[in-house]
Amino acid sequence: MSRSVQRLEQCLARIHADAARSAAIFTHVFEAAACEDAAAADARAARGQSLGPLDGCIVSVKDLFDVAGVVTTAGSKLLQTAQPAAQDATIVQHLRAAGAVVIGKTNMTEFAFSGIGINPHYGTPGNALDASRIPGGSSSGAGVAVALGMCDIAIGSDTGGSVRIPSALNGITGFKPSVSRVSRQGAFPLSFTLDSVGPLAKNVADCAAADAVLAGLTREQAALPARSVKGLRIAVPRGLLFTEMETAVAQAFEAAVQRLQAQGAVIEDVQWEDLVGAPFALQQKGTLIAAEAAAIHQPYLPARAQEYDPLVRSRIERGQSLDAATYVHIQQQRSQLHAQWDARMANVDVVMAPTVVFTAPTIASLDAQEAFMKANALILRNTSVFNFYDVPTLSIPAAQAAGALPVGLMFAGQRLADRHILAIGHALEAVLRA
Amino acid sequence: MSRSVQRLEQCLARIHADAARSAAIFTHVFEAAACEDAAAADARAARGQSLGPLDGCIVSVKDLFDVAGVVTTAGSKLLQTAQPAAQDATIVQHLRAAGAVVIGKTNMTEFAFSGIGINPHYGTPGNALDASRIPGGSSSGAGVAVALGMCDIAIGSDTGGSVRIPSALNGITGFKPSVSRVSRQGAFPLSFTLDSVGPLAKNVADCAAADAVLAGLTREQAALPARSVKGLRIAVPRGLLFTEMETAVAQAFEAAVQRLQAQGAVIEDVQWEDLVGAPFALQQKGTLIAAEAAAIHQPYLPARAQEYDPLVRSRIERGQSLDAATYVHIQQQRSQLHAQWDARMANVDVVMAPTVVFTAPTIASLDAQEAFMKANALILRNTSVFNFYDVPTLSIPAAQAAGALPVGLMFAGQRLADRHILAIGHALEAVLRA
Repeated sequence: MSRSVQRLEQCLARIHADAARSAAIFTHVFEAAACEDAAAADARAARGQSLGPLDGCIVSVKDLFDVAGVVTTAGSKLLQTAQPAAQDATIVQHLRAAGAVVIGKTNMTEFAFSGIGINPHYGTPGNALDASRIPGGSSSGAGVAVALGMCDIAIGSDTGGSVRIPSALNGITGFKPSVSRVSRQGAFPLSFTLDSVGPLAKNVADCAAADAVLAGLTREQAALPARSVKGLRIAVPRGLLFTEMETAVAQAFEAAVQRLQAQGAVIEDVQWEDLVGAPFALQQKGTLIAAEAAAIHQPYLPARAQEYDPLVRSRIERGQSLDAATYVHIQQQRSQLHAQWDARMANVDVVMAPTVVFTAPTIASLDAQEAFMKANALILRNTSVFNFYDVPTLSIPAAQAAGALPVGLMFAGQRLADRHILAIGHALEAVLRA
Repeated sequence: MSRSVQRLEQCLARIHADAARSAAIFTHVFEAAACEDAAAADARAARGQSLGPLDGCIVSVKDLFDVAGVVTTAGSKLLQTAQPAAQDATIVQHLRAAGAVVIGKTNMTEFAFSGIGINPHYGTPGNALDASRIPGGSSSGAGVAVALGMCDIAIGSDTGGSVRIPSALNGITGFKPSVSRVSRQGAFPLSFTLDSVGPLAKNVADCAAADAVLAGLTREQAALPARSVKGLRIAVPRGLLFTEMETAVAQAFEAAVQRLQAQGAVIEDVQWEDLVGAPFALQQKGTLIAAEAAAIHQPYLPARAQEYDPLVRSRIERGQSLDAATYVHIQQQRSQLHAQWDARMANVDVVMAPTVVFTAPTIASLDAQEAFMKANALILRNTSVFNFYDVPTLSIPAAQAAGALPVGLMFAGQRLADRHILAIGHALEAVLRA
């Protein structure tokens, strides 16, 4: 009965095995505290007690969540000299109360504002399958840590895809919940409108267990209904989300469609180009994220501009030129588009699309700013649509040949039906992995 | 048993008595439909049926709420050529379902964007006590119509004081509810953040009855608890809200304080200058209202600029220059200030201040743009603080000598405690009128 301690030792052994690589994955490892917490979990288990499914589980948190006594860097050099956090973020409090063992804080894109995962200050975590390739971001360390077995569950944040993209590129499962679902108290913000807090894990069940803790659900609320793939109505919005697609991704996607159809899913191609294209058409002058990031970084820009990753800073600076009336217009149109999206979803259980239309490129290939910006826009394209509509969305790995670079399949559910899409995802996963 | 028809006839007789004056108070009078509705209400009463306290009541709505078949002008020339509304605004549906007799639509400041009540397109409703004086706005016709007995209850909107200011200046009672309380569907917007929908009436009980219908409360939810002035903890935030005050207002306010103290109210002067001043300090570069108005009027400005009241247009145009980052900053700071306000209110039942620090000036005295702008800023100053904090707020008339110009006393309650401040207001009113 020392499962948590044993599991923690496995994780720590993997972290210590390649210290240089791990230093780019974790910004902090709380080895001593984690050992105590794991021992306490095992002691509870020995007494026949349990704080729930996360009791004794090894969990990391992205380095934008406050952990008491530690500086929250949000992947930046700028905040390295900030005061240590006075208390744990609400989600860290929830995790500890559920018996989770917080092993460390994971590296990320500076201020969470890119989907690639490159970080000039703390190093770029190499992809779990090929360290010369990008991890995806912004929860870069989170995705790699789970994929390499350095923790069971990683908590990330997802504003434009930052949980789902590293999940897809590292072959694991990620969940972007509804924005309103999880407290953001004690999390360094990117976008007040779009920031959501969700887990990355090996499978949907672990994501669901983490979501229940993050959202503060009772045991009754956390029970997942049994859902079946048979008869599941899946809409595939062909068009924009399927352009510029790598052959490997297209093949994996179509194979998944066939598997699901074979199990009785009712998959229908739909033409939702108006709604899928609306977030881009509406935000041509500037995005909600950039405007809100500009507001958040007003205390630091331009005074401390030199301390930023130039690739991140240029994206924030673009937000400075948006006018308030256009910002308000975007917010209003977004509300109306949500209603249209919901009407379109009325007779659909799930929307399915590739999470990212390419597999992880090499880090070296994105050295030039132009290549980086192009890849960044494309890596965020599909995921960000579902942030704009704020529907709960999973990324689940497609079945792949051994050694092939991972491909993620994205499944979005009905508005605020977070537990439902997790229940559906659990059923989908069984078919997709079979 | 023909009380509604009789009451309607009284109202119509007053409207017809001075057609020219009434034309500036009402933009539409629905005489035929109102007669039918009043007869139906009386028929219900004769059968012993009632749809509730508003059944058969004569109600007007501000001309920014949709009434099916009629053009919603929002006090503008611009919208005169718009399509008639296809259906009633949600609040009009609620009123009709409660048996209210909708007698007409009341005139207002163009687009509800000034507190004075002057309208160059449809005429300025003269103050109920002295038609050469301003009515207060933006729900100008609403305040005068109730004060002159042309309807029992008027429904207005309040973004910076537009229900409470005409209530104060015409000697009636007005209620600004919480923004989230009443549907704004079918209402022409001024500010998505601050627009609230509330009643003007002869007393607090009528305001409470109207609020229950507007908010869609059940009969159980609508029951007002009995509150007593004895022991009521009233905070008076001395400072900014008491500057530039007319002697008559100061005297009426202090007399009210003494009356309430004599009945056992515990009145404490407090120094909340930080919170009272924050809305102004925070919005020096531009206001939420102006930025949101600029967004709403983007389809019309600058193309149709000549059709606007120049005094209103210049205020909207000021919103065009605010940047999105500052707008976002204001919204974020406002959220934090709400928490600070609530903490300050923890041991207080009511905040008390003058609604407006002057009595109604003459319309002629505000002819010059500079005089208008100065008076407009001051007339909105006290009321707008409570819109910024979005706490439910009543304006109740102070006791005055016969013939004196009215003075309004403002009472703000705890956040979202709309029924409580109405119940408290009912008790306060009995003392203030005694």
